[in-house]
Amino acid sequence: MSPEHPLSASPAWQALAPLRSRALELLLARRFADDPDRARRYTATGAGLTLDFSKQAIDGPTLAGLLAMARERGVEALRDAMLAGQRVNPTEGRAVLHVALRAPLDAQIAVDGVAVMPDVLAVRERMLAFAEAVRRGDWRGHGGEPIRDVVNIGIGGSDLGPRMACEALAAGAGAGPCIHFVSNVDGHALASVLARLKPQTTLFVIASKTFTTLETMRNATSARAWLLAGGLPEGAVARHFVAVSTNAAAVSAFGIDTAHMFGFWDWVGGRFSMWSAVGLSIALAIGAEGFRALLDGAHQMDRHFAEAPLEANLPVLLALVGLWNRDFLGYPSLCIAPYAEPLARLPAYLQQLEMESNGKSVGLDGHPVPVPTCPVIWGEPGTNGQHAFFQLLHQGTDVVPVDFILPLRPSHGLPDHHRLLVANCIAQSKALMVGRSAEAVRAELSGAGLPAAEIERLVPHRTFAGNRPSSTILLPDLSPRALGALVALYEHKVFVQGALWGINSFDQWGVELGKQLAGGIADELAGGPAGAHDASTAALIAQARSALDAS
Amino acid sequence: MSPEHPLSASPAWQALAPLRSRALELLLARRFADDPDRARRYTATGAGLTLDFSKQAIDGPTLAGLLAMARERGVEALRDAMLAGQRVNPTEGRAVLHVALRAPLDAQIAVDGVAVMPDVLAVRERMLAFAEAVRRGDWRGHGGEPIRDVVNIGIGGSDLGPRMACEALAAGAGAGPCIHFVSNVDGHALASVLARLKPQTTLFVIASKTFTTLETMRNATSARAWLLAGGLPEGAVARHFVAVSTNAAAVSAFGIDTAHMFGFWDWVGGRFSMWSAVGLSIALAIGAEGFRALLDGAHQMDRHFAEAPLEANLPVLLALVGLWNRDFLGYPSLCIAPYAEPLARLPAYLQQLEMESNGKSVGLDGHPVPVPTCPVIWGEPGTNGQHAFFQLLHQGTDVVPVDFILPLRPSHGLPDHHRLLVANCIAQSKALMVGRSAEAVRAELSGAGLPAAEIERLVPHRTFAGNRPSSTILLPDLSPRALGALVALYEHKVFVQGALWGINSFDQWGVELGKQLAGGIADELAGGPAGAHDASTAALIAQARSALDAS
Repeated sequence: MSPEHPLSASPAWQALAPLRSRALELLLARRFADDPDRARRYTATGAGLTLDFSKQAIDGPTLAGLLAMARERGVEALRDAMLAGQRVNPTEGRAVLHVALRAPLDAQIAVDGVAVMPDVLAVRERMLAFAEAVRRGDWRGHGGEPIRDVVNIGIGGSDLGPRMACEALAAGAGAGPCIHFVSNVDGHALASVLARLKPQTTLFVIASKTFTTLETMRNATSARAWLLAGGLPEGAVARHFVAVSTNAAAVSAFGIDTAHMFGFWDWVGGRFSMWSAVGLSIALAIGAEGFRALLDGAHQMDRHFAEAPLEANLPVLLALVGLWNRDFLGYPSLCIAPYAEPLARLPAYLQQLEMESNGKSVGLDGHPVPVPTCPVIWGEPGTNGQHAFFQLLHQGTDVVPVDFILPLRPSHGLPDHHRLLVANCIAQSKALMVGRSAEAVRAELSGAGLPAAEIERLVPHRTFAGNRPSSTILLPDLSPRALGALVALYEHKVFVQGALWGINSFDQWGVELGKQLAGGIADELAGGPAGAHDASTAALIAQARSALDAS
Repeated sequence: MSPEHPLSASPAWQALAPLRSRALELLLARRFADDPDRARRYTATGAGLTLDFSKQAIDGPTLAGLLAMARERGVEALRDAMLAGQRVNPTEGRAVLHVALRAPLDAQIAVDGVAVMPDVLAVRERMLAFAEAVRRGDWRGHGGEPIRDVVNIGIGGSDLGPRMACEALAAGAGAGPCIHFVSNVDGHALASVLARLKPQTTLFVIASKTFTTLETMRNATSARAWLLAGGLPEGAVARHFVAVSTNAAAVSAFGIDTAHMFGFWDWVGGRFSMWSAVGLSIALAIGAEGFRALLDGAHQMDRHFAEAPLEANLPVLLALVGLWNRDFLGYPSLCIAPYAEPLARLPAYLQQLEMESNGKSVGLDGHPVPVPTCPVIWGEPGTNGQHAFFQLLHQGTDVVPVDFILPLRPSHGLPDHHRLLVANCIAQSKALMVGRSAEAVRAELSGAGLPAAEIERLVPHRTFAGNRPSSTILLPDLSPRALGALVALYEHKVFVQGALWGINSFDQWGVELGKQLAGGIADELAGGPAGAHDASTAALIAQARSALDAS
């Protein structure tokens, strides 16, 4: 499994490098004209999803070379090692088993010989029973009123997944409490949510594995104070707070009954945790049945990833196309464009999933990775983006590959809207590819009766070079099952890219330094002694401190 | 005003180019050690804002060279031409006068000799009076109930600015209706908002200059149908809909009284329009006094931009630092990190402002711009981002410059939260710059008692190269005045960069092609004849059509 060569010196890489110039020169539109079978050839399906990557600068030799690289880098063996519960996160000495969280009852998955499924199922059933009790109104607030609002307090992986999924699935959620999310330590986040709520009918879910995360504990403590200031007694805390954590002592000290603490395991990374008890707020929003469907959709993608040949394997193909764009064609960012307003937070979710996993420059071997790793991931839902940044996608100086994501059937009763949405999504990928030539612009403007001089002045501004690559991912709908499959697709894409780059996708040492420095500066802002700083940092602290002292 | 040379062949550019390697090699931390006055030297103030760009790879010769380039490219003369109402948007033959929207009563601004301020003031007073009437409860729904909810229906510039500002200023908004935003043609956007509202107490603001924008008219039409389906008569439309538009005939045909149509002018670009009647929903949210303070904050920045010497001119400095990072140091994106949850939509707002303005590759002279133009703009609020993508900012293979934006005084009563927020913002810019050496990691791990082999294995993963540049923008608070100044700062930054690159920042031809193609594809999805498509587009249409037909 440990490749013999640094990536860029490997035989597969060396074979791919000469294909780069042709990829940049041969127009995408030309490729379609040359090969009537191109769309079919570069479209794959799995777990109910369709991935069309035929509008990428890929051809037979490129794809063969990329697949050879995947084999050379041992992607299959690494995948199998992950699925078998081996410690594929060596810098933290952990297995990586989010797939177990959505595995069926009888799955045989073990870490160091100990089966994990019994624990997974026990927590899952306890958590889903709790969610249903709240939804049915059996679990009530201290004064006997049913819970109308749930506030999920967590940050990073304890926020982005549940927030994204609750928003994505709201249309089909049925009756249940309203779910709110507070992550930022900025007091505006908590204050603006609490201003609308009533302590007697509010349940807080405090999600922090260690129960020490700075932001989460700050927000949880203030939420607790709000509850008590609202007239509820200390003893009511246990009816209005539950925890997603493994630190029983701290949870208990906070006033939460550990019978309502839902745990997970060190083989669940934060950014892969929405399938665990971290998904409690999703279960509260959509119910146990919906949550099981979400898990099942992800599991279908897990099976596809484990079983489909690399040539037809969606996560592998998505990863290879991304690596081709990033390392050979040199595109430094990837735009995620979900044509679905409920997926508005998907780009933010994928930012953590991809950039925290693969935004690294040192390999597992301790040496610098010789090529660029994770690109910047960004985006907004279509059609909104078309009226904002798509100008740059079409006519900017840089090429930005796009992942278009389109659920085909809507969950609302406005078919005219949906037809326009779908048409715009498909039109954008076509427009990015075909562009518009100077001749076409001339013909159009001349047809509109503009004088020749005016036409020549406008032509360069209204011309589109085209040839800008994109993939389109079709979902049957925006059901829990389809969303589960979509998220698992990107999870495994991230895994494959990590394997190709030879990095550990499962640690996140890069977040530590800022945390450490913040502790010292917070003390200074509270009146503590000045630390050793550069002059800029010292001046910022001084200005902030004088503003804080005055307010 | 028309520069003699293409940008990259200009004397200033040629003088700057040799400074690049030193900028990349000399560590930022070293620069602070070498120059005790560095923080002061590269910090500027204006309109109540502080810009600290001392953590950028800039020094005396670089800044002098960049300022020389600004002079050589005629930035001052172009600025004065814009402020004087000249037609600085030549591809559309328009003046660019969003500054007039926030100018004082007695400002002398004219387009082709016609003073614009009388019209500006007339619309502004009419719009603010309307907003106050709604807020006071004098303007009521058809059945006599006061308006409790306002739905702003618009997209792009008619959505992003009002949405961002309403969210930013909510904490200080006082009593008033609740403001909702619907932009996406995806029916989920409208349906999810309407599900919570009552026709009798809802006011719709339809914002579309031409009153023909596809998304906006689709949403407005469905909103109108919802109102009538809710039991209100046709005649009630005029009490529940107002328009921000200039198309009186279409507005009237829709059923809106043109007395409640608020116009603007062809010298107000969509992405610069929140100061115009497009800001009606902001005025409804924060009242006339707040809206005037927002305008005044922007006006203070306008004056600073017009009057401060380039060396001390915030928009000019922000633009020059950006161009240095983009064109000389080669950084293809810019991360916007507001340490303020209420500024969560600022990155999306700036995406349109910057990328739609300067995401172009053809100059005003009709020739390709010889250097990269607008970078990808992206970001999320801190501290959230720290738990998501900051891993890549600290340890990724690419350098991503960051604009940290920090309001110093909070509008909530949770001082402990605010201190942590401020500490984290300042700590991140320091951490990005100073990094952590292998020696420091070794010392720390060895202090923690780790065995030597384990330490050596972990050192590369826990080391931070540092030397990653950022700017910090301090706001006194998140008041309307400070927000106005902040947005105007970026508006003028965009103008200066457009002037440097020699492009027209005020057109957006790049959005046209996709629109045209979408029309044809929508017809096909509705059963019309098939168009001429590549095989991928044809297959996507076929798959979408069969899903639509089945649903």
